[in-house]
Formats: sequence, structure tokens, C-alpha cells
Amino acid sequence: MSSTFGRLFTLTTFGESHGPGVGVLVDGMPPGMVVDAAAVQRELDRRRPGQSAITTSRQEADQVEIVSGVFDGLSTGAPILLLVRNNDQRSQDYDALKDVYRPGHADYAYAQKYGVRDHRGGGRSSGRETVGRVAAGALAKAALATVGVSIVGGTVRVADVAALRRDWDVAESNAVRCPDAEAAARMIELIEKTRDAKDSVGGVVELVARGVPAGWGDPTMSKLDAMLGAAMLSIPATKGVEIGCGFAVAALRGSQANDVFDGERFASNHAGGIAGGISNGNDVVVRVAVRPATSIGMPQVMARAGGGTETRAITGRHDPCICPRVVPVAEAMMAVTLMDAWLRQRALRGREK
Amino acid sequence: MSSTFGRLFTLTTFGESHGPGVGVLVDGMPPGMVVDAAAVQRELDRRRPGQSAITTSRQEADQVEIVSGVFDGLSTGAPILLLVRNNDQRSQDYDALKDVYRPGHADYAYAQKYGVRDHRGGGRSSGRETVGRVAAGALAKAALATVGVSIVGGTVRVADVAALRRDWDVAESNAVRCPDAEAAARMIELIEKTRDAKDSVGGVVELVARGVPAGWGDPTMSKLDAMLGAAMLSIPATKGVEIGCGFAVAALRGSQANDVFDGERFASNHAGGIAGGISNGNDVVVRVAVRPATSIGMPQVMARAGGGTETRAITGRHDPCICPRVVPVAEAMMAVTLMDAWLRQRALRGREK
Amino acid sequence: MSSTFGRLFTLTTFGESHGPGVGVLVDGMPPGMVVDAAAVQRELDRRRPGQSAITTSRQEADQVEIVSGVFDGLSTGAPILLLVRNNDQRSQDYDALKDVYRPGHADYAYAQKYGVRDHRGGGRSSGRETVGRVAAGALAKAALATVGVSIVGGTVRVADVAALRRDWDVAESNAVRCPDAEAAARMIELIEKTRDAKDSVGGVVELVARGVPAGWGDPTMSKLDAMLGAAMLSIPATKGVEIGCGFAVAALRGSQANDVFDGERFASNHAGGIAGGISNGNDVVVRVAVRPATSIGMPQVMARAGGGTETRAITGRHDPCICPRVVPVAEAMMAVTLMDAWLRQRALRGREK
Amino acid sequence: MSSTFGRLFTLTTFGESHGPGVGVLVDGMPPGMVVDAAAVQRELDRRRPGQSAITTSRQEADQVEIVSGVFDGLSTGAPILLLVRNNDQRSQDYDALKDVYRPGHADYAYAQKYGVRDHRGGGRSSGRETVGRVAAGALAKAALATVGVSIVGGTVRVADVAALRRDWDVAESNAVRCPDAEAAARMIELIEKTRDAKDSVGGVVELVARGVPAGWGDPTMSKLDAMLGAAMLSIPATKGVEIGCGFAVAALRGSQANDVFDGERFASNHAGGIAGGISNGNDVVVRVAVRPATSIGMPQVMARAGGGTETRAITGRHDPCICPRVVPVAEAMMAVTLMDAWLRQRALRGREK
Repeated sequence: MSSTFGRLFTLTTFGESHGPGVGVLVDGMPPGMVVDAAAVQRELDRRRPGQSAITTSRQEADQVEIVSGVFDGLSTGAPILLLVRNNDQRSQDYDALKDVYRPGHADYAYAQKYGVRDHRGGGRSSGRETVGRVAAGALAKAALATVGVSIVGGTVRVADVAALRRDWDVAESNAVRCPDAEAAARMIELIEKTRDAKDSVGGVVELVARGVPAGWGDPTMSKLDAMLGAAMLSIPATKGVEIGCGFAVAALRGSQANDVFDGERFASNHAGGIAGGISNGNDVVVRVAVRPATSIGMPQVMARAGGGTETRAITGRHDPCICPRVVPVAEAMMAVTLMDAWLRQRALRGREK
Repeated sequence: MSSTFGRLFTLTTFGESHGPGVGVLVDGMPPGMVVDAAAVQRELDRRRPGQSAITTSRQEADQVEIVSGVFDGLSTGAPILLLVRNNDQRSQDYDALKDVYRPGHADYAYAQKYGVRDHRGGGRSSGRETVGRVAAGALAKAALATVGVSIVGGTVRVADVAALRRDWDVAESNAVRCPDAEAAARMIELIEKTRDAKDSVGGVVELVARGVPAGWGDPTMSKLDAMLGAAMLSIPATKGVEIGCGFAVAALRGSQANDVFDGERFASNHAGGIAGGISNGNDVVVRVAVRPATSIGMPQVMARAGGGTETRAITGRHDPCICPRVVPVAEAMMAVTLMDAWLRQRALRGREK
Repeated sequence: MSSTFGRLFTLTTFGESHGPGVGVLVDGMPPGMVVDAAAVQRELDRRRPGQSAITTSRQEADQVEIVSGVFDGLSTGAPILLLVRNNDQRSQDYDALKDVYRPGHADYAYAQKYGVRDHRGGGRSSGRETVGRVAAGALAKAALATVGVSIVGGTVRVADVAALRRDWDVAESNAVRCPDAEAAARMIELIEKTRDAKDSVGGVVELVARGVPAGWGDPTMSKLDAMLGAAMLSIPATKGVEIGCGFAVAALRGSQANDVFDGERFASNHAGGIAGGISNGNDVVVRVAVRPATSIGMPQVMARAGGGTETRAITGRHDPCICPRVVPVAEAMMAVTLMDAWLRQRALRGREK
Repeated sequence: MSSTFGRLFTLTTFGESHGPGVGVLVDGMPPGMVVDAAAVQRELDRRRPGQSAITTSRQEADQVEIVSGVFDGLSTGAPILLLVRNNDQRSQDYDALKDVYRPGHADYAYAQKYGVRDHRGGGRSSGRETVGRVAAGALAKAALATVGVSIVGGTVRVADVAALRRDWDVAESNAVRCPDAEAAARMIELIEKTRDAKDSVGGVVELVARGVPAGWGDPTMSKLDAMLGAAMLSIPATKGVEIGCGFAVAALRGSQANDVFDGERFASNHAGGIAGGISNGNDVVVRVAVRPATSIGMPQVMARAGGGTETRAITGRHDPCICPRVVPVAEAMMAVTLMDAWLRQRALRGREK
């Protein structure tokens, strides 16, 4: 239960970074939806390590196998298992870390929680767990497209470099997935400099869902923004989420923040497309704060599991900025959240939208 | 289901602002916990309208009745129903609004979702729904106290006035619930000025949970931060949530953001007490962005339900800044989130913490 | 969570037999459904003690109050709280039982589970808990009627007296709710004889849902029969449930048990309207084994809470045969189960049926 | 969600009989439990086709792979994926059935539910789905053994041949898994005769859980018997479930049905170890009615998908009596039900049992 996201459209990821494989079990896909392995693969390739000069140099083919729930290219309504075998596992990179708690990592919290610890690459806390999220998101995206909903996303800030434009068409054409080509160049430069300093850097990822009809999401405990909040903060390395103008709302007056609506169109979108937890027909806009990767090459003080500390560098191959790889993961989680809201609205009203 | 928060410790609020009453059904309270109606009442009084010069002048006694689940002052393990009867209902204030969609309100989204609409005071989207949250939170706080967990909260920003100190002891002694007495005075002045201008203003609320042991929260989909994110964004009028240093993390390097730990103590708390979704023994720190109240006295353009627009002021009695009243609600939602995580950890390990 | 039945249409009962009141919180009712307090009351009156010579002589008016979720006689989509105040509480009847575990009752199991015990009338294990089920069921029945689904039920066996006919129209016209008028007379005679002997007697209740379209229920873990099984065995005093020909299937050959279907009509209904967990368009038929009431007037050996045993009679007013009062409860649970399956099918297919 | 059983300890099966594989995702296993692939394999071998002269002659090796959630032979607390590849698929056996609805099968109900249909071997409605249940049950059994709980099961009736003894030690030594060696011989003879007549026959399976402490199971909606009822009726081909004396209770008086308890021991077990939905420390006893297999070799009238009927025999290899293969499946479902109840009790009380 605790490893499952969603209520009607659910995903449960499984697998460890250094076990046989990772993947996801998706339940609740309506029957008759096109399930295209190539489309899933395309999304996995966007998340894949080694895809550019500013991501980790680990190599994983991340080939997906559809094990169940699909017949003749269509969903049958049965659970869909998507499986990705691991291959590039350098477990020895981690043996040295068996007896220390890496700063910023979940090592200590895990050890306290479970009493047992899989130290190889962080086990479940590894970013590799997100393979399953991306695969499930690809299915959700395809299903949402049948009702005209699409999602775009990109990196809109790295340290002090902010995107000033939202040219979503250019986001996929640069390594940092920034919707502002000019800012992208400066972000990449900054990331490379950080990498060379054996450090890492944080940023902000933004997502926009277009075509969401008014009426998705439930009041009180299953508000669409609450579900998106859970979705985004369930992604490793996120420390904040905001909807529409987000924290900037604190500085606004009501007369500024209220979006004027003429019955057909909104004059602005401070609300980020959600009012009272329910979509209002405007674009749904979400931003996510992304921490700098915790694994860095420079020496750090670490607690030893047995007591005391030592100063040590973390070897291995790590991302200097994980924003570009968070983008497809965050899009996937937005897609599954919307998918779930869509199906709940169908249960409530019994019609297509 | 969609009106329920939590998995092992659950709350489901019910009631409309202009119906017979509001309240909450709490399920999953372990047996033998002290349930004190006076303690619930104290928390409700912190949320109550009319408590100070800067809150709405509506008067609601908000007297709680414990209908079930308690025997001889102790929880029995059965569902606990807490009921608050409504009294100060000026439904006529809302009759004029029957055929318009108020800007920033959920009126339009609700109408699209349900096809039917309870226009009296917003129905379920009314802030009055939070009475049940606060009542449930009071029970959770008392239960958490038995294992040494306590929660404090306050308003740390109103527009451009920020709290520079965290003197939690002073937060309850000023009307805006600010943990910085000097900032509080300026916040109150700003709120009064805004109210006189028939406008409203936003802010930020901060919460700190102390004494949370390492090991609460689950990896992947039920991360403690994800559950806190859902909890906070389920509160009306919130537009963002952040953990620890939150969005400021975007500007940090890994070498700065990683909290150095010597095996017993953390040198900093950028992570806000959560690593990999699991509490690490540090204080759990959450901040919530609060929108200015959508109901304002100055005239606004509104869409008519039947088509076209009109310009109109919203009469009635409203909060110029809802931050001080969000504080007890946010604390309550933090308490129920931690309560749920605590019980899940008990299921996993079979011990008290 | 553990006190909630259903997934999309949920009910959570609350209240103790000797507390302020009992009732139910219903979540997931689609908007726009007629909610008629009189219809709820009619069902409650069918469950009420003191309704006939063969039920307990306790008197409870069981007047229902609709606290939330309804506006202008229609459901709004918000949670519906139905509350019934207790009045005829003779707690003193139970004081004598404080320190013993009544045979067949849940006293001992409760004490072991919770460590605390509400001895007054069994607390949550009291049959009074079913008030909330019946109230929720009345709402579900009304909603199901909008898509042509109706439910009938009755007592088809008391000890060795079996109903040989299924004249559902006569079931409500006799005190034991038997669909065979001739058998009813003999059942009533047997129940009166049992009552006079200070004993109680068991029986079997049968339910039929007509008009259920093919396609409700989910394969594997949420089969319609599995959900009906949980629903029926969640009713106090039930010890078995069967679908269609039930346990008699053990004696059949496949060539006998398979219901021949010509594409429009089934030649028989051994399957009870469910195949592979999914309704097949035939009547859904369920039978429930009902234990004799555990509270009987004749002396019994009981364990003392502090150790040792004693022989004692249970005073108070009890039902000599609870079948007639189980009928409306079982119908209610069948209705909520079907309601939930209907909404899940709407989520899956997005159309009315 | 609808494919998941359990709340704290959950299993979700996946896979089709004629797809790449079948299996189960188990979530909620506490950390540190021994997970032994050989133990899982032993249970799968008990379910395997082709294991004896009276089961289908299909051959499936059913070799299990542990894909996730286990490190150094112990559970880590992460989801456990158990995968079994399919091999002996004679899809051509089913091509002929593409356009007919087999009598007693779920073909028609599925087609009405989903609009799409995987006709190969019944897809999800195939008994092959139970591979995942058995694998998950093996894990649950091992975990329950750590607190002294064990489960035995067997076939206690085939048509009119009933087991008169409960020598559980002999159940595994005969092909029909009957705890009465003498009855077993007669059952096997009857099954062989039925098989030769190209027909199938039903029966009853009984399960006993020993060592269950008092206090497992929740009142009202998550009663232990209600959860067992759902578990059993979720198994393909079951038509009824009873607890303790079950339907026989209908013929008893209260003075007979109440189990006398002296504070330590029960004089009888009519209740089947459950009172008020909570285990009382006595053996938990469950019986399940098992339908004759719907696939039989003799010609039957079947509806054509396009309209009209035809008379046809179902070729392929089928079980003349599925009781012996239902035994391990039912034991598995009882194990996961108890596992879930155990963890819920740990959450409630914070101790081992």
C-alpha cells in the first residue's frame, strides 16, 4: 500500500538499483487504450543516464518489457507489468560505503527505519526507482492524449540562472531541458563548472498540463493540487512544490491574485488552473524545487555506522545537476495524477470528461 | 474515499458552512489514548472566526460534541465522531451570489464538476470545512505527545514583512501568530491597512515538529514529505509547500545542502528532518504559501452563470489575512500526517516508535 | 480505514449502543441523487427493535438526521452524515456483565485486542452498529434504482423450517420476513417456542438483486462475489455466505452446474449471476448463514475476567431469532456493494452502465 | 487498486495464461524476514498442473524468480516482485473459442465489462492467475511462522464423498489432498470416473489456522471473517465460504452454538475461532465451496459472440476436480489475510502480536 500511488489509476514501483531489475505495476488502465512499447521506451530514454555530457556517465540501456495487461497492442483492463533489467552495476563502487552514512543521503534514516540495509547504490532510495515512474507515466500520457490532455516540462532555474521564456518547443533540444535557449547555455556552463569542482547544483523544474477540462480533482482531501503535491514530493531530491504563482502569492493582494474570468477565458493564471482543489479549465502549472545531487566527488565528513566520523569522497559516477533527468519523472507523475483524477471524475459523473 | 486523509489514522471531514453542522470522523486511533474535549475545544478556539481584530467578525461558538469512540475519557479503538453545530449562518449574504462565479473562488470549478451547486458560503469549499481538521488534529497531537512529539507553528511572512526570529513561545501571544514579536506588529499594521482598503493579503506559515524519531515515513510513494505535501495542499488557500530549505535549495551546491551528521547530531537542517522520505531525527520543518483570501470587499468583475459578466463587491464578513487561522489547521494536518506515519512504522517494526 | 467499507462508494459506521448516538458517514455518492429522509427512515424502521412480537422488546425510535451532503433534497457529491440519537439505554442491564466474558460474544476477543473494554451492551460489537449500515443502504438503493437495479430479501430458513417458495411480495407481510407465507407461520411458531425456552435459534437469509447489468465487479481481488462475501460476513452474527447454488455446487457435475446461455437468456442460475467475479446479467443471488443470538436468558457458564468461571443468565431484552432484522441489514450491504461496483465500472468505461 | 488484496500486507497479481509470464507484487513485508526461493517453489509445486493423475496434464515448470525486495536472503521492507515465466502455451487450443462464450466461464461477462477480450485461455480469468497468490502466500506463511501461526488445508468433500477425519498429516500424501485416507481413495476413484465421462465435479476445501492469538481482525468492516470471506471468494471457482460450523449454525439453538470458555480454553469451536470479527485464540476454521471446473470435454450448447448458439466440446487439457489445486491457493489467501490482520494489530498496539 505504502509503495502505491493513486487510487483508481495506480502505480507501484519495484526493484533496487543493484538487483535483477526495476519496473512498475500499473493497475486501473481502462481497456482499449493503445500501449506502445516504443512510446514507453522514448520516455525511458529521456530519463536514461549517459544521455548527455551533463548527466552521469553510467550506461543503462533500460530496455522495457511489457509482461502483462496488453493484448494485440491494447490494454485489456488487467494490471500492466513493465520490467527493465539492470545491467551496468558496479556494486563495488558501493562496498566502501557499507559502513558510513553518506551526507544528505537516506542511509541513516533507512537504517533506523528498517534495521536492515541494502547499501548497494542506495537500494530503494536510488534514483533508479524512477524508471518505473517514467514507464507508467508514458502509459498515462498516451491515455490522457485521447481526451486532449498533454504535458510539457523543463528546467526553469539552475542556481541563479533562470529561464525568462517558456518556449516549450526548445526544451527538448538542449541538454538541460530548458525552455529558454539562451538561459540553457548559461545553465549548462554552470553545471559543467560545478561538475569540474566535484560538486553538484540545484534547480527548479516546471510542468504545464494543457487541455485539462474543468472538474477534475476532489474537494478537501483529494484536491488536485494536494495529489500533485504528493506526486512531486514523492520524487527523490525534491524539496518543494508550488501551484500557479506559488510562494509568490504571499506578496500579493487578493485583488491581484484573483484571476478574472469572463465565463470562457481567464485573464491570468495565478491559481495555476486549480480552484478549491478542482481544475478550472486553465493550464495546470506546477513547479518543483530540486536539490543538488547528494553524491559529490569532493571529500565530506561522514558518520560511521559503528560510531565516529571520517572524511571521504564518494567515488562513482553521479549527476552534477539532476534537473534534466527529473523533468521526465515529474511529467510522468503529473500524468498519473491527472489520469487518476480523470477516472475519479468518470466514476462521479459517468461520462467521458 | 476521496474525502479521507491518511491510511492507518484517517480523518474524513463533513458538513457545509450553512448546513446543520460540520465535523470529522477519525478512524484508527489506538485504544487507551486520553481524549479530552477541552483540549479539542482549545484548538477549535484557535481556529474560530472572531477571535481577534484581524479575523472575520463572524461569530461561531464552535462547541464540539464527542459522539462516539470514547469511554471513560479514553479512546476505545472505535471511530471517533466529533460534531460542531453551525449557528451564525447568514445565508442571505450569499443569495446574491447564486448566479455568479466569484473570482478566485471554486464556484465555477465546482459547478463544472458536480452539475449541482450549493452556493451558500461555498458549501464544501468553505474554510469552515477545516473545523473538522483542527478537531482531528487535536486528537493526533495528544497521541503524539505520548511519544514525545510536539508541533509548533506560526505566520512567518505577510506580503513583504518577514519574521526574522523563531521565538515560538511568542507566536500565540500576538493576533497574527508570528514567532517574531517585532515583525508581528508590522504584519498586523499591514493587515489592518489591507482590510480598510477592502482587500486581502497573502503570507507564509511555518511548522516545526520536534521529537520525531528517525524512521517515520515510507520510501517512494508514501514519503513523509509527500504526505506532508498532500496534507498542506489539501488546506484551502494554499499554493505551495516546502520542506527544510525548500525552494532556496535551487541556489545551493551539494556541498552546502548536505547536512553534516556525526552519528548523533546534524550540523544543519537543510533537509528539514527528512531524507529519502524518512524522518532522520532532526526537526521536521514545513512552510506553506497562503493565498490572500479570495473574498474581498472591493468591486470585481465576475462571470454570470448564464453568460456575460458584471462588476460587483462581495458583501459579508471576511478575513483580510487568513494566515493566523491557517496556523492551527496546518498544525493539525501535520499532526495527523505524523500520526499516520507513526502507526505505519509500528506495523512495520512492531514497536512503539 | 479498517472501519470503512467500499472503495468509491464508502460507508463508515460509528457509535456505541450506549453512547450519545450511532450513524454512518457515506462518501462517494454521485451528485444529483435524490436523498429522501423518509426513505431512510422506512429502512431503519425495518431494522428497529420492538417492531414485532418476535423481536426484542427494546424501544428505539431511531430517528435519522441528515447532517451534511444534501442540498435541496439532492446529493451534492460531498460526504453525507446520517445521525441517529440513542435513547432507550438501560446501561444497568450490563453493569453485572462488566467482569465476565459472555459465551459466544466478542467480549474476550475485544478485551484481548484493545486492552480497554466498553462493556455497555457490547459497545461496537452491538447489533446497534448496523443502524448506520441500513441508513447508508437506503441511499444506495435509491441511487441504484435510477439504473434499474432493485434488491429483495427475506428469511428462507429457521432451524429446520425452510421456505419452499420465493414470493418476495409476501416477505414484508410476515414478522419473520419469509417469502413463503406457509413456512413463515411455522417459523414464527418455532421462534416463539424458542423464546419461551429462554433460548435463540439460527437461520438463513437470502437476497436477490435484479436488473444488475453484465460487467459489474472486477477480476481477481475485487470480484463482485468477493466483495459481497466481505459485505455479508461483516454483518454481526453471520457465519457463512454463498453465491447462487453455493455449497450445493460441491455435489454437482460441471455439465449440471454450467448455466446454458443463448446470448440473451440463461437457462438456469447456478452461478448466482456472477462469472469470474463479474455480473453476467442474471439475477445476483446471495445467501447468508445467521447464528442464533448469543444473548440468551437461560443460565450459562461464563469466564470471569479475573479468572475462574460462574454460571449466570443474561438479563435484558434480546432477539430470539435475528434473521428478520438481519434482512434489511444484508440488503443494505448488498446495495452498497453493488453501488461501489457500479461506480468502478463507470470509472473504467466512462458511461452510465 | 481493484487488483490488490490487503491493506498493510498487499498482493497484486499480474499476468495472463498465454502472455510472457505471471506473478505477484507483494508490498508491506516487514524487513528482516527470511525469503527463501525454495520455500516459494515448494508451494508453487503444490499448485502446479500435471502434478498427479487427477490434475490437468498441462506441464508448467513454474520456476519463480525473485526480482526485488530481498537482499542477502532477507526482506528489506521494499516491494517483492515474484515472476514466473510461462512456457507450455497451446494458444491454438483456444483459437476455436474466440467467437463463442463458453458455458459457466467468464467470457461473456468479461466481454461486456471490457469491450475487449483476450480469448487465449481466459486471460485474467484463467486459474493461472493463482500462481501469484500461491507465491505471495508462501512469503506470508514464512512470516507468520515467526509468531507461531501455521495453516493446514485439504479437500474434505468431493460430490457425496465426505472426509470423516481430519488427519492433516495425511492430506499431502494423497492426490486429492484429503485429510482422511479412506475417503481420499473413494474421492480419487470418483474423480477418475468423472474425468473419463468428460465431465468435472465439485467439492469443499477446509482450512485451519493454528496459533492465531486472540485480538487479530477489526470490528465492523474489516472483521477477520469478512476479510477471509473476500479472500476465499476471490479465488476462481469458489461459490461459498463458511466460518466454524458455518451454514450448520442455522439449525442450532444459542445454547448449542455458544462455545463455553473457561478463561483459558474453549469447550467447542462453533465460532471457528472468530468472535465479533476478532480472533479469540481458538483455531480459525474456514471452508470453501468449489465449483466443478467449467471446461469439460463433453459437448455443450454455447452462445456465439455474433448471435445464435452452437453445440461444441471444449478441447484442451482440464482438471476433472480442481479441489486439490485449490488447497494451496486457499491456504495462501488465508495466510495473506492473517498477515494483514497481524500487521494491523501491530499498528494498533505497537507490539509483536
